Amino acid sequence: MDDRFTVTYRIFARSREEARERAEGVALEQTVEIPRDAVSAGYVEDVILGRVVGLEAEPSGESWRARISYAPDAVGHELTQFLNVIFGNSSIQKGIKVLAIEPGPEMTRRFPGARFGATGIRRLSGRRAGGFVCPVIKPQGSDTGHFARLCHATALAGADIVKEDHGLANQPAAPFRERVAASADAVARANAERQAKGDSTRALYFPSILGHGDRVRDDAYFAKEAGADGVLIIPGILGFDAMHRLAEDEGFGLPIMAHPAHLGPYVLSPDTGYSHGVLFGTLMRIAGADISVFPNHGGRFGFSRAECGEIVSACRDADGPGLPILPSPGGGMSMDRLPDMMRLYGPDCVYLLGGSLLRYGDRIGDAIREMRAALDAGV
Amino acid sequence: MDDRFTVTYRIFARSREEARERAEGVALEQTVEIPRDAVSAGYVEDVILGRVVGLEAEPSGESWRARISYAPDAVGHELTQFLNVIFGNSSIQKGIKVLAIEPGPEMTRRFPGARFGATGIRRLSGRRAGGFVCPVIKPQGSDTGHFARLCHATALAGADIVKEDHGLANQPAAPFRERVAASADAVARANAERQAKGDSTRALYFPSILGHGDRVRDDAYFAKEAGADGVLIIPGILGFDAMHRLAEDEGFGLPIMAHPAHLGPYVLSPDTGYSHGVLFGTLMRIAGADISVFPNHGGRFGFSRAECGEIVSACRDADGPGLPILPSPGGGMSMDRLPDMMRLYGPDCVYLLGGSLLRYGDRIGDAIREMRAALDAGV
Repeated sequence: MDDRFTVTYRIFARSREEARERAEGVALEQTVEIPRDAVSAGYVEDVILGRVVGLEAEPSGESWRARISYAPDAVGHELTQFLNVIFGNSSIQKGIKVLAIEPGPEMTRRFPGARFGATGIRRLSGRRAGGFVCPVIKPQGSDTGHFARLCHATALAGADIVKEDHGLANQPAAPFRERVAASADAVARANAERQAKGDSTRALYFPSILGHGDRVRDDAYFAKEAGADGVLIIPGILGFDAMHRLAEDEGFGLPIMAHPAHLGPYVLSPDTGYSHGVLFGTLMRIAGADISVFPNHGGRFGFSRAECGEIVSACRDADGPGLPILPSPGGGMSMDRLPDMMRLYGPDCVYLLGGSLLRYGDRIGDAIREMRAALDAGV
Repeated sequence: MDDRFTVTYRIFARSREEARERAEGVALEQTVEIPRDAVSAGYVEDVILGRVVGLEAEPSGESWRARISYAPDAVGHELTQFLNVIFGNSSIQKGIKVLAIEPGPEMTRRFPGARFGATGIRRLSGRRAGGFVCPVIKPQGSDTGHFARLCHATALAGADIVKEDHGLANQPAAPFRERVAASADAVARANAERQAKGDSTRALYFPSILGHGDRVRDDAYFAKEAGADGVLIIPGILGFDAMHRLAEDEGFGLPIMAHPAHLGPYVLSPDTGYSHGVLFGTLMRIAGADISVFPNHGGRFGFSRAECGEIVSACRDADGPGLPILPSPGGGMSMDRLPDMMRLYGPDCVYLLGGSLLRYGDRIGDAIREMRAALDAGV
């Protein structure tokens, strides 16, 4: 009968003794944050204090995998403090990286994960099989009319998800409310035209929510009222809890796409931060994302094919946390890379089509149709 | 007449040409995020697109300092998008680190910085000269009575700021509202006793705000109503904007202490993230912190003396942004380290006294008095 959750850390050390000592240090740091000899007997020592429950050398001989368990009582019910226990102060110590989070039964009850997940998004879009085509609406600095036209053209051509660029916030050229109302309307018109032609699928419009942190809920509700089908959120700027609060909000009740902006330093170093799978898979799932955007390997970002594979596995792991979600590789997608991407990502994937889309000009619908055809041919 | 703001990035590259190309890539990535040939003429190209305005080789020969300017129009008025332009997607690219942020006149109007700053905190506490003594109230898992007793004892003994541990959130052993009400009351009683003895200084109580992200304002207002004199915020978990929104809230109007938890990966690598001075100085000031907590060198965290010096300079730089703020080194402070710390940090500094405090047991007031005496002797 153990309700504790467990975090696996890679700890760099010169010997098993040093690794053990550092692991015990993390167990203290992440909970009581006082010297071991000052921990009082009873509840604080027996329950709250972290426990080192495993220590295994890694093949390199330079690092150890330390498993540390924590009590749900050290957290409470807020994702903020859950993150703080997982990696608050220890994130500032050199040579410590989070490799796995096992929430356990109690934290799974408190953080049940995505509301829709991969199957939910498929149901909402009506796309029964094959990858999802997802144009990204850009660039910032354009006016609302430009965005609405792109939304209409890509939705009409068969896009499954019409996603706004994460850099669309609340700038003067196209203020949030004006832009979202016009774009939602444009996608709705395109969907009506698709339906009239007998299309059983529809485009889902995901506007970018990047106003003030304390207005996320207001902005998301405004988007919903305007006709949005989901929202794009940047947990690296707004905080993972902002995303989670929307995900658990019954009144909102729409899917969430997580964008990786500002999260790079958490994965780019071998000796600090989170593993790619934990950050873009496990944590996104715990925080309630239905779709996790990340940069594809080989583009202008430096993720490796193996790191992308790790993200995909973490998004899809049937054992949780919560429902499997959709990975969404982006960052320099072009049509000639699609066959290779399909081998790696398969059909349960949101394929982003970003800046290169704009090169099509008035023929932008062709880009969507070409991608749809390629994805269908590959199924 | 240039209202643009400028960010200096360290960019790793093998040649000046590659560095130039990468810098132009950042200017695109952080604004329009489309290929250069797809940027349309006019406002988007002339105003929104980032501009490389400087490129200097660094002594190592492996990296360049690229200065890129951006338009306030690319941001709007929200700190969320300000951060996104500074380092959203480029944070995910390898070998790019933010070394400086120059807000310029327009962004300085939009983000004027700390409400109190170093001089404001000195005024509120009545401590006319010398370093500030700041015990940290711990450990989580204790009950409300324990925290209130520590608050009273340390405040009565002469503490300037009574700060809660950043791991005190809303756990069952001492729920937020119960804990804060009792602790504020304990500090108020101690202050009354100090005043009755003719003491012209008082202890400022800073509870930890770490509930749901969308309740930061409610929690902070509750703390204020209960008698708190300021709050402790974790921007690495709640987002920098959550802190900023409180700082600019006239109705709240209390000072803010920023805690570094979960921010480690942004500074621990030489080739990603922010410099120590930018993260714990410049960004904290832009986001409205009055006090910036960071780990002292030589403790259980791995910051160097030079990195700590850089943080102090960035907190105090008279040229802004906004008012100079107080650095607050912590993480393993003990009395024998104080002389060295005083040489590095001087009197305009909040000296944290953490876990070692608990070793004093019932004599905890002695620890405060010893620290006060040492700080005063060193002035």
